Amino acid sequence: MMELKDMTFGIVGLGIMGGSIAQAVRANVLDEPRATGRILACDVNAQALNKAKSDGVIDESYDDSSAADMIKKCDLVYICLYPHATIDFLASHKTDFKTGAIVTDISGVKTLLVEKVQSVLRNDVDFILGHPMAGGAKEGYVNANGAYFANRNYILLPQPWNKKENLDLLKQLVSAMGFTHIVETDYVNHDHKIAFTSQLCHVIASALVESAEDERITEFGGGSFEDLTRIAMINAPLWTELFLSNKKELLGHITNFEKQLDELKRDIEKDDASALEAYLEDVRKKRILMGTHVAK
Amino acid sequence: MMELKDMTFGIVGLGIMGGSIAQAVRANVLDEPRATGRILACDVNAQALNKAKSDGVIDESYDDSSAADMIKKCDLVYICLYPHATIDFLASHKTDFKTGAIVTDISGVKTLLVEKVQSVLRNDVDFILGHPMAGGAKEGYVNANGAYFANRNYILLPQPWNKKENLDLLKQLVSAMGFTHIVETDYVNHDHKIAFTSQLCHVIASALVESAEDERITEFGGGSFEDLTRIAMINAPLWTELFLSNKKELLGHITNFEKQLDELKRDIEKDDASALEAYLEDVRKKRILMGTHVAK
Repeated sequence: MMELKDMTFGIVGLGIMGGSIAQAVRANVLDEPRATGRILACDVNAQALNKAKSDGVIDESYDDSSAADMIKKCDLVYICLYPHATIDFLASHKTDFKTGAIVTDISGVKTLLVEKVQSVLRNDVDFILGHPMAGGAKEGYVNANGAYFANRNYILLPQPWNKKENLDLLKQLVSAMGFTHIVETDYVNHDHKIAFTSQLCHVIASALVESAEDERITEFGGGSFEDLTRIAMINAPLWTELFLSNKKELLGHITNFEKQLDELKRDIEKDDASALEAYLEDVRKKRILMGTHVAK
Repeated sequence: MMELKDMTFGIVGLGIMGGSIAQAVRANVLDEPRATGRILACDVNAQALNKAKSDGVIDESYDDSSAADMIKKCDLVYICLYPHATIDFLASHKTDFKTGAIVTDISGVKTLLVEKVQSVLRNDVDFILGHPMAGGAKEGYVNANGAYFANRNYILLPQPWNKKENLDLLKQLVSAMGFTHIVETDYVNHDHKIAFTSQLCHVIASALVESAEDERITEFGGGSFEDLTRIAMINAPLWTELFLSNKKELLGHITNFEKQLDELKRDIEKDDASALEAYLEDVRKKRILMGTHVAK
């Protein structure tokens, strides 16, 4: 069986995610003297590729037009693109993957992906759906960091076609990259949960920023507003795509959130101190319990 | 003129705020060899007092029944209590303050305070309204930290009765404690702004926690939900008081926030990618600008 340290990795899209994956693999998988593995990367951004190459993070770089040449050499391909671009890449490179290759993605929505890629999958290529739960306001290879994934959650969505040994290999890889908690689930549940933990939060943070009277409001900040809106330094095209690709789930969560907000509002309007205090006590208990399920 | 290093400070309420103030004053104001100043503290919690005394943070400790004895000795009294308790303390100790003393508070709502304390203020005691903008999920002296205020905002609300030299002295003190940005405003504006940066954020974080299906949701977390709800490990009695004491302003902000949420919801429902992307681009720009007004 293939060992991680001797595999050829292909990173498609060398932004903050692809770049951090490349750096984490370089530092934690290919760092032993007898490792023969390599990291190849393709991106439209030549600057990112040159930086990664001169840093010794990647061994070979490819642009859009030569991506097929890279794919052909890879034992494991990490597609680090937006959801629709991931679907397009899988479709246009269907015939390029090496026999036996593992292909995985990082897309934040999965139902769309599963529905669209079925027709472009090959029996001799194992496509494993995955979602590294790490994000932030930063973008681009310039912000990539091999330690980015320390103590983070990773979601894997095993499909009927996935080979157990490939799933095991990917788990081994993500653990080596720093992820400490791997959750396995199906794509319906994934999209339902992520619409809450990720998309709803970005909607709330965005609405909160827009409801500010002016940008000088942070002069009156003590940390709360800053914490709630850090993710509002948002990548607009990416999140537009994520919101719309998971619309039904997201709208359901927004509605539930609005109901809770209304309940609080009513208690405040009615000056109902005891209802309010009971509500907040419950919030406190739940949030403390939630903390025990966080990877870090 | 009195110098900070030679003053007797009285801390009323030795929780996380009072405790952190005591530690910051000890470390940054009374740390020079020729300083003759002292820190006295009163609290109902004997354990907190003993700890602060054995740590060398405070010089003398007082309980509820002996608070008057402490107050009589102090050049500067820091009342670190909840809003209503602050009002009660000022009223019941009206005759105890030393002539010429500076008295200041940390209450998160001010209109209520200004309305209620007018009748208990003395001409020979200078009550200065202030609000250290530092907070978090932690409570109690056990979590106090002298470095808690580094790079934070401090709001001062000068009143007609305040003496300039006393305001200057307090500014000097809060700068020494680590605050890097002092904003001066009136109590109406304070309550309006704080209802947004602080209270609205706590309402949102609480509603978000309650709208979660279960406490295991954080297994699917990537940091966003965790960041948005850290402040939901909330002190229920304190925040019940703060919400209700600033009800009108808070309800106004909740309504504005709901309008923004509705706009986003409509764009998502209508699959309006261009409106959504434009909205998020605006959010991003605004939030980046807001970052330039943050003290740290």
